[in-house]
Amino acid sequence: MAKIKVGLNGFGTIGKRVAHAVTLQDDMILVGVANRSANINVRHMLGPKGPLNKTPLYYSGKKIKGWKTKGSLEQLLKKVDVIIDCTPGGIEKIFKKLYDKYKIKQIYQGGADKSIAQTSFNALANYNASLNKKSTRVVSCNTTSLSRTLYSISKALKIKCATAVLVRRATDPPDDAGKGPINSVVPVATVPSHHGPDVQTILPIKITTMACKVPTTLNHAHFVIVDLAQKCTKQKALNVLKKTDRVLTFKAADGYESTAQIFEMFRDIKRPRDDMYEASVWEETVNVFGDKLFWAHVVHSEAIIVPENIDAIRALMGIPQKKSMTKTNKSLGI
Amino acid sequence: MAKIKVGLNGFGTIGKRVAHAVTLQDDMILVGVANRSANINVRHMLGPKGPLNKTPLYYSGKKIKGWKTKGSLEQLLKKVDVIIDCTPGGIEKIFKKLYDKYKIKQIYQGGADKSIAQTSFNALANYNASLNKKSTRVVSCNTTSLSRTLYSISKALKIKCATAVLVRRATDPPDDAGKGPINSVVPVATVPSHHGPDVQTILPIKITTMACKVPTTLNHAHFVIVDLAQKCTKQKALNVLKKTDRVLTFKAADGYESTAQIFEMFRDIKRPRDDMYEASVWEETVNVFGDKLFWAHVVHSEAIIVPENIDAIRALMGIPQKKSMTKTNKSLGI
Amino acid sequence: MAKIKVGLNGFGTIGKRVAHAVTLQDDMILVGVANRSANINVRHMLGPKGPLNKTPLYYSGKKIKGWKTKGSLEQLLKKVDVIIDCTPGGIEKIFKKLYDKYKIKQIYQGGADKSIAQTSFNALANYNASLNKKSTRVVSCNTTSLSRTLYSISKALKIKCATAVLVRRATDPPDDAGKGPINSVVPVATVPSHHGPDVQTILPIKITTMACKVPTTLNHAHFVIVDLAQKCTKQKALNVLKKTDRVLTFKAADGYESTAQIFEMFRDIKRPRDDMYEASVWEETVNVFGDKLFWAHVVHSEAIIVPENIDAIRALMGIPQKKSMTKTNKSLGI
Amino acid sequence: MAKIKVGLNGFGTIGKRVAHAVTLQDDMILVGVANRSANINVRHMLGPKGPLNKTPLYYSGKKIKGWKTKGSLEQLLKKVDVIIDCTPGGIEKIFKKLYDKYKIKQIYQGGADKSIAQTSFNALANYNASLNKKSTRVVSCNTTSLSRTLYSISKALKIKCATAVLVRRATDPPDDAGKGPINSVVPVATVPSHHGPDVQTILPIKITTMACKVPTTLNHAHFVIVDLAQKCTKQKALNVLKKTDRVLTFKAADGYESTAQIFEMFRDIKRPRDDMYEASVWEETVNVFGDKLFWAHVVHSEAIIVPENIDAIRALMGIPQKKSMTKTNKSLGI
Repeated sequence: MAKIKVGLNGFGTIGKRVAHAVTLQDDMILVGVANRSANINVRHMLGPKGPLNKTPLYYSGKKIKGWKTKGSLEQLLKKVDVIIDCTPGGIEKIFKKLYDKYKIKQIYQGGADKSIAQTSFNALANYNASLNKKSTRVVSCNTTSLSRTLYSISKALKIKCATAVLVRRATDPPDDAGKGPINSVVPVATVPSHHGPDVQTILPIKITTMACKVPTTLNHAHFVIVDLAQKCTKQKALNVLKKTDRVLTFKAADGYESTAQIFEMFRDIKRPRDDMYEASVWEETVNVFGDKLFWAHVVHSEAIIVPENIDAIRALMGIPQKKSMTKTNKSLGI
Repeated sequence: MAKIKVGLNGFGTIGKRVAHAVTLQDDMILVGVANRSANINVRHMLGPKGPLNKTPLYYSGKKIKGWKTKGSLEQLLKKVDVIIDCTPGGIEKIFKKLYDKYKIKQIYQGGADKSIAQTSFNALANYNASLNKKSTRVVSCNTTSLSRTLYSISKALKIKCATAVLVRRATDPPDDAGKGPINSVVPVATVPSHHGPDVQTILPIKITTMACKVPTTLNHAHFVIVDLAQKCTKQKALNVLKKTDRVLTFKAADGYESTAQIFEMFRDIKRPRDDMYEASVWEETVNVFGDKLFWAHVVHSEAIIVPENIDAIRALMGIPQKKSMTKTNKSLGI
Repeated sequence: MAKIKVGLNGFGTIGKRVAHAVTLQDDMILVGVANRSANINVRHMLGPKGPLNKTPLYYSGKKIKGWKTKGSLEQLLKKVDVIIDCTPGGIEKIFKKLYDKYKIKQIYQGGADKSIAQTSFNALANYNASLNKKSTRVVSCNTTSLSRTLYSISKALKIKCATAVLVRRATDPPDDAGKGPINSVVPVATVPSHHGPDVQTILPIKITTMACKVPTTLNHAHFVIVDLAQKCTKQKALNVLKKTDRVLTFKAADGYESTAQIFEMFRDIKRPRDDMYEASVWEETVNVFGDKLFWAHVVHSEAIIVPENIDAIRALMGIPQKKSMTKTNKSLGI
Repeated sequence: MAKIKVGLNGFGTIGKRVAHAVTLQDDMILVGVANRSANINVRHMLGPKGPLNKTPLYYSGKKIKGWKTKGSLEQLLKKVDVIIDCTPGGIEKIFKKLYDKYKIKQIYQGGADKSIAQTSFNALANYNASLNKKSTRVVSCNTTSLSRTLYSISKALKIKCATAVLVRRATDPPDDAGKGPINSVVPVATVPSHHGPDVQTILPIKITTMACKVPTTLNHAHFVIVDLAQKCTKQKALNVLKKTDRVLTFKAADGYESTAQIFEMFRDIKRPRDDMYEASVWEETVNVFGDKLFWAHVVHSEAIIVPENIDAIRALMGIPQKKSMTKTNKSLGI
C-alpha cells in the first residue's frame, strides 16, 4: 500500500513535534514542512544535527533568507495527500483557501475555531467521526486530556456532569522570555472557560470549566470533579483510569511530589524533547465522596496532541481506529 | 468599662499583625508580646521606627540576647485576660499548660488541631458559639475565606454541597528564601485536602476540597463550586456576595486581571503591610449553570485572619457579635 | 514664603508615588494630577479611601469617562510652577511642547532621553548642577542607586573605574499579569547595558555595566566591583557606605537572607506601599581583594526615585541641597 | 585492549547522567551502579523503558526493597577498575575508606572538598595533572564553565585577573518541589563565593566571584570580567571563545533572547534529557572596553560535568588528553 504523503505548515512548538512524529510512522512520508521564516525550530530540527535533517523546507510567505528552501507552500501542497496546519490560531483561515484549492485533506489544531473543519478530533473518544472525512481539528492540549479521561470514565460509569478547574502553565518553554506572570495568578475571568464547550465538540457530556494561569512553563494541572449517577469506589475509578489508553498514573508517595518529578521520567526514558504524550493522574487524588468522583492529572501542553495528530491523518485516510492507535503508540514509545 | 488586657505569644507573620491590630482597638490594651528570639519581626515592629515601639517584649524560651525584655512569658501571662497564641502549628500544645495554669482565656490559630480549644471561630459564621467560652481557635486563612462566602451563600440560598479547588501560594513573602517550587505545581495528594473538614468545624455543610501549591507568594486563589437546591441567577448570587461582610468584589474588566492588581489596591490605600483583610471575588467568575454556582476569590494568606482574631477576643469576653465586628471593621479600615 | 505649586502628568507606578510624596512636603502644594484614563492608580489613590482623595484629576488626552475631572492638562499647567512628567518613556517628548508653552519648570524621569532636559539629576551626587535650571531628568532606579553609592565611594577613595552586574526584576508588581520570564534569565545582549552611560550623566567616572532580567518583581540586585587607586579595607569601605545618605546596610546573618526579608522591614515600619527609598547593601558582601572593592545592593524599582523627584523640584526652585534633602528625608521617614 | 571496568555510586542527578554516558563509550563497561534506594532515577533509568535497563543495581546501604539488586556496593567495588562517586557532598568521605580498601581508582564530584583526591580535574584546562593518578575530583558545574573559558582566554591573551558574577538556578528540575525562592534574589553573602577559589584548584589565575540564587531551575548565567594585560578586540576574544572545545556561541539576535531558547536547541537535537554539555556564550555580550574583557555565558547545572567525568576516567587510566576528549565528544554528540 502506498505511503500517505504528508505536508505540514507552521513550524512552531506543535508543528515541529508533529512533523517529527510523522517521520517515525512506517505508513507515512513527510514530504516537507512550510514556514514563514528560518526560526530556531527550523534551524534546530532541519539543521545538520536535527532529527529532520533530510526534510525540505518550503516558504509559506515571502522567500526565506538564510536557509535553503525547496519551493513555496503551494508547491508542497501539490505533492501531498494531507496537510497538517500548525499555524498560530486565527491564521489557519487564510491558508484554508489554498488547501481547498489543491483539494487535499486538512488537519487543524485546537487554536482554530471548530467551524474550520468537518469534525473535531480525539483519537480515543471520537476517532470514527472523522473516518474518511476531508478535514478535522485536533482539539487543544487541555481538551485532549479531559476528553481521554472523561470518555473513559463516562463509558465505564453513569455520570450526570463534570466540572474541572484548570491550573495552566503561562507559556511554553521556548517562548519564555517575557510572557508570563511572575508572582501572581491570572484567572480566566469568564466562567465557563472555553475548555468546557471545547470538550463538548468531542463528547456529549455536561461539563463546566474554570481556569487560571500560574507562573510555570511545561504543564497544566487539572482538578476534575464528576457527578456520578451510580455508586462507585475509589478503586473502581482508579482501575478505569489505569486502563485508559494514553493515560498514566503516578503515586506522590513514590516520589512524584510535584509535576517536576513526573516530567523527570520522560527526560530519563529519552523521549525526544522529554515529551509526555500521556495525561498523568496522581493516584492518591482519585477519590469518591458521596456522588462525586475526584482526580487531578497533569498535561504536557507541548506534546499531548502529537499522537492525536498522527491518528487524525489515518482517520481522514480511512484507516481503522485500533490499527492507527496501536501503530502510533508503538512508534512513539507510549 | 475596663479595657481588655491582651497578651500575644509567637511573633511571626500572623503574630505581629494581630498584635498591631490589638493596639488599634479602643477597648483593648496590648500588655506585651512574647517570643523566643529577637527575630526580624521583633526588630522591625518593636524597634524605634516600628508601630509597636512602646510594646514590651517577653521571652518565651531562654532569655533573649540583643533586645531588652520585660520578663518571661509567665510574667506576661499573669497580667492579661486573654492570650493569643500565634506559635507555629504543633507548638501551641506545649504552651497550653502554661496558659491553663494562669486560668486565662486562650485564642489559637488554624495550624493547631481543633481539639486545642472549645470552639473553632469565624466572626461572621459562628461568633456566638464562642461567646464567653474559655478558648477558641481562629481557623486558617483558606478556611476563613471559604467560611465567609459559604456561610453567606448558604444563608441566602438552599444548597446541597460545595466543592473547592485551592490554588495556594507556596510560602509567605518573609519566608521566601528557599521553600517554594519554582517551575512546578505541587498537589495536595490526598483528597479531600484538610481544608474541607476544617470548614466543617465552622459550618454544617458538605464540602470537599482539592488543593495545590504554585510558585507565588502572597495569595491563594480559590475556585468554588456550589450545588444548589433551588433556582438562582448570576445576579442574585453576586448580590449575596457583594453584601457579605469582609468580602469585596473586583472586575477583571476594570483592570484587575491578576491577583497582583487586586493587591495593588491595598498598597495604594495605605493598609499597613498592604494587608487585605477581605476575601476578594472576581465578579465575572460568579455564574450559575444548571444547578451549580461558581465563583473564584483571592485570599491574602498573611492577613485575612487578623480581624477574626480581634473578634475572637471580644467573643470570649462576652461582647455581642455585631458590636465587635463593627468596631473591628472600623478600626482596620475594612 | 509661597509654597511651590506642583503638577504631575502620568499617574502610573512612579507618578502616584511622587504625587503622594509631594503632598507630604510643607513647602509644596500638589495642584493636581493629569492622566489619560481613570486607571486603577487613579481609582485607588484619588478615591475615597486613597491618600490623595482631595487631589483633582485633569485629563491629558480625551475627556475621561467615569471619573470627575477638573479640566484639561493645559488648565493644570496654567496653575503650576513645576510639572513632573511621569509619562511612559518616549511620550514625554510630545508633552514637552506643552510644558514649554506655559514656561514652567520641568522634571522628567529616567526613561526619557537625557537630551530632554538641561541636566540629569541625583540628589546626593549632583544636586547643584540643577540649581535654578529650567528642567532636569531624574535618572532611573538602577542609575540612582549606583550614583549614590559610587559618588560616596569615589569621594572617599581614589578609584580607577567601576563595573556592575545588574540582576533586574522583570516587571513591577502591578504590571504582573504577563510580562515576565518564568523560568529563564534574559540577558541584556549588548554590553555595556544602558545603565553605565546613564551613570555618567551624573558622575564623571568610568563605569561599564552588564544586566539581565530574572523572574522576580519588586527589586533589582546589583553586584558592584570598583577598581581602586589606593589601599582600602573592608571596614573602611563599609563605613563609607554606612554613612552615605539614602543608603542602608543589612546583615544576612541577622536574618536578611534574601531580598524578601529586606522588603519585610518596609512593610513592618509602615512605609506607604512598603516603599524602600534607600539602596540597601548586604554588609557581608562588602570586601576588598587586591585593588578591587566589591559589594552587592538591592534597589526597589518602584520607589527609590521618589525622594530624588522631590529634591529635583527644590533644586529647580533654587533651594539649597542640604535644606532640601533634610526636608525630604524627614517627610518620607528616611 | 581490555575495556575499562567502571562502577558508579550515588544515582542522583549527576550519577545517572554519568552512568549513561559511560555506556556510550566503546572502551568502557559500566559494571553496575550502587545506590541507597530505588529512587525515581533508578526506576526510570534502570527500568524496562530506561536507557540502562541492562545495568545491575547494587545497594550502598541497607538492602533495597522493591527492586532487584545484584549485591552490595563492596561486591561492585571488587569488580571495577574505577569507581565514580556521585554521592551528595560530604558523604563521599565515608565511602572513600571502602574505595581505598579495594585499591581502585576514584573519581569524586565538585561538592567534595578538594582534599578528597590527589587532583582537581577539568578536561581542557588540566587533564595531564591527573594522568595515571589514583584519584581526582571533577569540579562543579560553575567551576567547569569558568575553567574552560578562562583557560582558553588566558592561553590566548595575557591577563591580570578575572571577576565573575554568578546568577544561579536555585534547584535542579527533579528537586523542584520546595527548595527555591519564588520572588526574591538570595545572595551568597560572603565574597568571594566558593567558586573563585575552586577555579584556582584548576587554573593559576587570580579570580574573585560573587553569586546569587534566582527563581529558575536548569541553568546558571555567568557574567565574566577579565582585566587584560594586553590589547584585544571584541572580534579576537570572540574568536578565541568560538574555538574553545565544549564552548558554543549563540546570538540573541538569532532568537536566543533568554536561556530558554538556548535550551530549546538541546531539546530539538534530541540530546538525552536535553543535556547541554557545553558552556554557551551570548556573542553580543563579548566586548572589550579599555583593559577589560566582558562576556556572559550559560551553564546547564545538571549536565556540563558529564564529559569531564568520562575524561577523568581515561586520565586516571593513563590515556592521552586528545584521544580521550575526541572520543568523549564524539560519543556524546558534542
